[in-house]
This record gives sequence, C-alpha cells and structure tokens, in this order.
Amino acid sequence: MLPTEIIARKRDGLELSKAELLVFIEGYTRGEIPDYQAAAWLMAVYLRGLSLRETVDLTHVMAHSGDTLDLSDIAPFIVDKHSTGGVGDNTTLVVAPLVACTGLPVGKMSGRGLGFTGGTVDKLESIPGFRCNLSSGEFRENLRRHSIVVSGQTPELVPADGKLYALRDVTATVSSLPLIASSIMSKKIACGANGIVLDVKVGQGAFMKTLEEAMALATLMLDIGKNMNRRMAAVISNMEQPLGCSVGNALEVIEAVETLQGHGPTDLLEHCLTVGAKMLVLAGRSKTVPEATQVLQQSLFLGHALDTFRRWVIAQGGDGRVADSPREILPRARFIRTVGSPQTGWITSLNALEVGQAVLHLGAGRTVKGVTIDPSVGLVLHRKVGDEVGKGEPLYTIHAASVAKSEEIEHVVSAAYTFGSSPTPALQPIFRVL
Amino acid sequence: MLPTEIIARKRDGLELSKAELLVFIEGYTRGEIPDYQAAAWLMAVYLRGLSLRETVDLTHVMAHSGDTLDLSDIAPFIVDKHSTGGVGDNTTLVVAPLVACTGLPVGKMSGRGLGFTGGTVDKLESIPGFRCNLSSGEFRENLRRHSIVVSGQTPELVPADGKLYALRDVTATVSSLPLIASSIMSKKIACGANGIVLDVKVGQGAFMKTLEEAMALATLMLDIGKNMNRRMAAVISNMEQPLGCSVGNALEVIEAVETLQGHGPTDLLEHCLTVGAKMLVLAGRSKTVPEATQVLQQSLFLGHALDTFRRWVIAQGGDGRVADSPREILPRARFIRTVGSPQTGWITSLNALEVGQAVLHLGAGRTVKGVTIDPSVGLVLHRKVGDEVGKGEPLYTIHAASVAKSEEIEHVVSAAYTFGSSPTPALQPIFRVL
Repeated sequence: MLPTEIIARKRDGLELSKAELLVFIEGYTRGEIPDYQAAAWLMAVYLRGLSLRETVDLTHVMAHSGDTLDLSDIAPFIVDKHSTGGVGDNTTLVVAPLVACTGLPVGKMSGRGLGFTGGTVDKLESIPGFRCNLSSGEFRENLRRHSIVVSGQTPELVPADGKLYALRDVTATVSSLPLIASSIMSKKIACGANGIVLDVKVGQGAFMKTLEEAMALATLMLDIGKNMNRRMAAVISNMEQPLGCSVGNALEVIEAVETLQGHGPTDLLEHCLTVGAKMLVLAGRSKTVPEATQVLQQSLFLGHALDTFRRWVIAQGGDGRVADSPREILPRARFIRTVGSPQTGWITSLNALEVGQAVLHLGAGRTVKGVTIDPSVGLVLHRKVGDEVGKGEPLYTIHAASVAKSEEIEHVVSAAYTFGSSPTPALQPIFRVL
Repeated sequence: MLPTEIIARKRDGLELSKAELLVFIEGYTRGEIPDYQAAAWLMAVYLRGLSLRETVDLTHVMAHSGDTLDLSDIAPFIVDKHSTGGVGDNTTLVVAPLVACTGLPVGKMSGRGLGFTGGTVDKLESIPGFRCNLSSGEFRENLRRHSIVVSGQTPELVPADGKLYALRDVTATVSSLPLIASSIMSKKIACGANGIVLDVKVGQGAFMKTLEEAMALATLMLDIGKNMNRRMAAVISNMEQPLGCSVGNALEVIEAVETLQGHGPTDLLEHCLTVGAKMLVLAGRSKTVPEATQVLQQSLFLGHALDTFRRWVIAQGGDGRVADSPREILPRARFIRTVGSPQTGWITSLNALEVGQAVLHLGAGRTVKGVTIDPSVGLVLHRKVGDEVGKGEPLYTIHAASVAKSEEIEHVVSAAYTFGSSPTPALQPIFRVL
C-alpha cells in the first residue's frame, strides 16, 4: 500500500481499511510520509468524509500513535470531561473538584488556549506555583493520592494528533467533523478515562455555529467512544454569549472559586451541575441526573468541593490560599476600568466571539503556539442577555496592562452588546443532554 | 489573501480570481508557499474542479511563471503539435519535417518519457550526436535557419508547471482535467507557437481511457488556446494498440525514417498526414484538410520531407546518414529474437498498455526522472489488430540487452495479443478531428 494509493482511494470516495489508516497515520507520525501527502489526504477526507467505521479506526490508530495511560490499577472507574471550546469557559475548574469530592476520581489532560477560546491549562497556571507539566508518573500519583489531577498533554501522548492538527491549521482542513471528532476522541481515549462527558458548545463564540452541527459532532463523538467501550454522555451548551461573567485567566479562576464558595454566576453553576451530574451518572454513582445534582449541591453547600479544590491546587504545587482569597493571591492587571452602559434598556445579545477576540487582544490568549500570555487581563461582564440596565450603570470592567490596550478594545466590547426597549428572557445555558 | 484563505475558497467550491491564482502559483514557484499548502489546494482543485475562466487564468499564470519565447520576429506563423502520450508514438519525428518542408516553420519543445509512454526527446537522442538541450538562443537560431527545431524544455520555461507536476505525481492529483489541460497548455503558450494541433490519445495505452474523457480534455484545451488567441485544432486518435509497428527509441526512429522514405506502417502514415494537414490548415497554407493532405503526400513522394529530416538532424548535431541507412547508424540491441504466433487466427486486440510496460521493463523508458535509458531496446510488432496469422509465423521481435530480459517479457507480450477465429476489421487510427 503506497501512500499515493491510499490518498487516491479516499479521493475517489472509497472507504479506507483500518490497515490503510494505520500505514498512513503511523508513516506520517514517524516522518516517513511527508507533510504534502498528508495535506492531500486531509483535503480528500475533508471533501469526501469518513464513515463511522473509518472515524473509529482513525481514532484508534491516532490514540495508539504514542504512549497511552492505563489507569485501571488506580481506580475502577475514572471520569473525564471535554469542552469543544468557548469564551469564559472555566467549567473544569469547578466541575473537577465538585465531582472528585464525592469520591469519583477525575483525571484529565487539558490543552492550552489557541485563538479566541481559552485553555484550562492557561487558567490553572495563573495560580502562583501551579504546575501543569506533569509526567505520566506524576499524573498517576496525583490521581491515586488526591483523586483529582489536571495536566497538560505530554508530547508522548497522541503524537499523530499534534502533527496532524498543526497541518490541518495551515491547509484549511480544520473544520471537518470526522477530523475534529477523531482528534478530540483520540486524546480522550489515550488518557485512560472510562467515562467521558462531552461539552459541545454551540453559537457565535464556538466552533460549531448551529445546533445541527453541534448535534452531529456530539453524536459522532458519542458513537466513537461507545465503539471503543467508553461510557459516554454529551451536553450541548449555549455559547452565544460568554459562560459566566469573567473572561481572562486569573479572572476565571476567581469566578470558579466564588462558584465553589457558593456565590458564582447562576448560568455557570447550572452548567457545571449538569456536566458534573452526568459524570456521576456515567460512573454509576447516581441513578438519575436529579439525584446526582442533589449530591453535588450538597457537596458544594458543605464546602467539600472548595476543600478539594484547595487540596488539588496544593498537590500540583500551587498556592492553596487561592481557595480562600483569590483576589489577593492571583495576579492583578495594572489598569482596571469599568465602562457604563451607553443606554437604558434590556440586553438582547452579547456576542461571545467579539468578547473573546477583545480579550485575546488584551493579551489573555495567543494566536500562535508558544507565545506567553498575560494571566491578569480580561473582562468582567456585569450585565448579560436578559438583564436590565440604566444608562451609565456599570456594563463591564476591563482589566488591561495599559490605558492604551483598554481604549483599543472598549468600542469592540460595547459594540458586542445590543439593547432592546422591552424585557428579554435570559438565554438557556443548556440546549440538550445526550 | 492568505494561502489558507485561497485553499479554503477552492475547498468550498468557490471560483478563484486571477489575482488569487497569481498569488498562489507565484508564491509556490518562489518557494514562499510550501508543498503541503499546494498539495491541499491541488486536492481541492481535483475534487471541486476549475471553471473555464479559472483554467484559462491558471494556464496564463503558469505560462508566465518563468521565461517565455517570443518568436514573432522569426516568422509570422509558427506551428506546434502536442501528443498526450501513447505507446510507439513517433508522430513528431515524421510530422515535423513533413510540415516544415512545405515552408511552414515548426518549433517545438518536447518532454522526456516517464512511465509507459515514450518521450520525443529520448527518441531523437538515440541518433548519435543529436542534441536536444538547446538554449533559447539556439532554439531561435535553428528555427530561423532551418524552419525546424525540436528541443527539450529549458528549466527557465514554466517553472510553476515543473514544480506542480512533481507534486501532483506524489499526491494522487495527476488525473484532473483542468490540471492536465493547464499543464500542457501553459507549456505550449510559453513556447511561442501561433497555432497548435493537439493529438489526444484514447484507449488502453493512453491516459484517457474513454472517448468521452478524451473529448472533454481536447475541448477544454481548445477553449484555453482560443481564449489565449492561439489557432487551435485537435485530433482524437486511437491508442488501444500501439501506433505503428515499433516501440522503443531507436526502433521508432528507424520506423519514422522508413515512413519518410515512403514505406512505413499505414496507420502511422494516416495519423501523421491527418495531424500535419491540420497544421497546414491552421496556418492558412491550405484551405481544406484534403488539399493539405495532397500537399504533404507530394512532399513525401518527392523526398522533400526526408531531406528536411536529414538537414534537421545535422542542424542539431546528429549524424545525417540516419536518414538513409538508419539501421547502420542507430544503436542495435545485443539480443534480438523473433517470437512466433502461438495459434492461427485473426488478431482481435493488442493491449497497448501491456506492450508499453514490457518495453519499459526492457529499459527503453524510466519510471523515475533522471534515469538513463537504453536507446536500442524495444519491440517490433509484425502483426496488429485485423491481421491474419498462422501458427508459428512471426508475431513480434524483441530487441533486448540480454536473453534474460527477453525471456522476462516474452509471456507478457504474447499475452497482450488476443486471437479470433474469424476475420476482424483493423482499428481506425483516428476517432475525431476537431
């Protein structure tokens, strides 16, 4: 099987065998198949698609392109969650301790942010001392001792995906459903979790712009996972406006701590309870979502989730005082300015993409891999869709490195809001639970 | 215009502007756009196609990616011909002197053979001393003084095509109609001819396997040429069986000389007269194809064509005696064996692809660029489709470098023949003249 023959078969819309996918992906990962052949293959896949069988096999081949974690000796059932990426999405920071404190181990490898969506690793690293570059051994040890660990992906895990993703980025082949699904699922499979809850975002601030696309991606990933003997669930959630009220690394940590303390934004709490409840149900710890939700609410109320967060931070080298007084421990932006509403009325929309891009411009994210980010900068949104506001009342607060940076984004953020003259309902945070 | 945006537009089936094609092809030729981006673009073009307008613009951009020849100071009208490649196709060796001897200048840049189809340059270089690596200056000078020149393409001409063709070869994007058409036509356009006759081969021994495909390619190339103010014609010719009776470099030169001497194979003669007549009509030298055919037959009968061949060979450094006694001048294979027919009957088919591959195996061609070929080896076919043969009568003669090589291909060549028990008509050499 020559690489050109495999490319030609996909070009002609034929189904590739698992052996062909193995030859191609392994050859590419080892550098024997050059970038240009992989690029032609990716475009053929983009335009011809992959069957479910091919997507499952591709996921399996990618998942086994490097090391894989076997966590079965640590606990009988380990859960993971994955978000497809949104603006202000600090769900993991709340859900991981919320679920782990009930006794269900949470072991998760997470990515760095790229583009307008942030990365969990960047958020955690805004906590002084917090280390995300754990070795496989440290990952296992932390999971065993603390039942909670979140680490950056090691380069030894799923090297095929790292290489293919970088190539997709420069060959206009990112937005292919089977390629997105196999990329995400190969990493989840390689990380050894038994149950995975997918958080598929839909809306202006997400990669999936319509509910149909999001449902298609979720269904495909559920099918892949089930085919590989994982217990799977998915939440389709709203990303028309940012999740919660904070966007920016340290600001989102503060918001997560406040949520664990019991006074976070209601949409974020509802979202985290839904994702967390599904994790408990998947693991068989609760029979129903309402029952699981009650368990989680109780843990939150009793402070168990916050305690677990503190232990987690300390276990990964961070300053545990962040759980009690995050505003004192976390880096603070040099320039903070609250902007008033330009008019009186009800907020009818708040464009998540524009907010995400403004925060990116402040320096909270990166458009190119490897760039250093500023953990302190970002936005706090005082009003969201459905809220009433009077002219001049606080609309949002900019946390910037300078007056100039703040001024550069102010008109963008104000323009991300639209106003109406009559009451508007708040947005529903969750569309579907699968 | 970023390369990824141009790739994405073609991926989505949108029409690219001439400016976008220029940015992409020039960027690629200069090495600023990497192979992997060009590979993704090629696959998108393969699967999404190009409109006629895009194909014309791509041809123009490629034709002007390097030097172009302006021959307008040499003669008011210069004709060229191009074959899409077949087995035993020595048409140029006959047609070029046949047309040039009537006073119509023929200036042609030709390729080397790759795969089972031979290249005119390889055939000419089997004549001792014959030089095909002419500079642009030598090309112009020979055309001016002798009205006939055939040279290998200089690397300064159409560098974009050289690079793109090599990439298509390894990314399964060769067989795309607009890419084939723009590749061929960009070279023809850059070489400065005013009129071009296309010889599009169809059948087992050609790239186009069906008449429909061949017609589509011919029509597209005619449209491109006309859009670029060239006078165009096309001949759709039969490549189910090899053209003429000889396959192999020196053997095809012998056959061409014999045809110019007046005793070549009838199918080759008919083919050459059709192509040559169209060249005369394109240039306005004759009003109709029958009139032009008569002019060519007269030139052949009077020996003018053979004289022009002799002058042509000498002008490009070759041994002119090849025009009189080619068998003494040209290299001769070490081992020659005539194979008898395995049965009595009529030849019903003679697979051109299998014959071409057998000759390739003898060493007459190359599967990888840059490899040295053996000019002496090849096949002479004593019987073709429609001929009657008795068991044991000469079917074909192998010219090989060794007994072993001869034995390796004998069963392949014999198997390329099929026999019937009742008379079968000969194959028509020409399907259509456009």
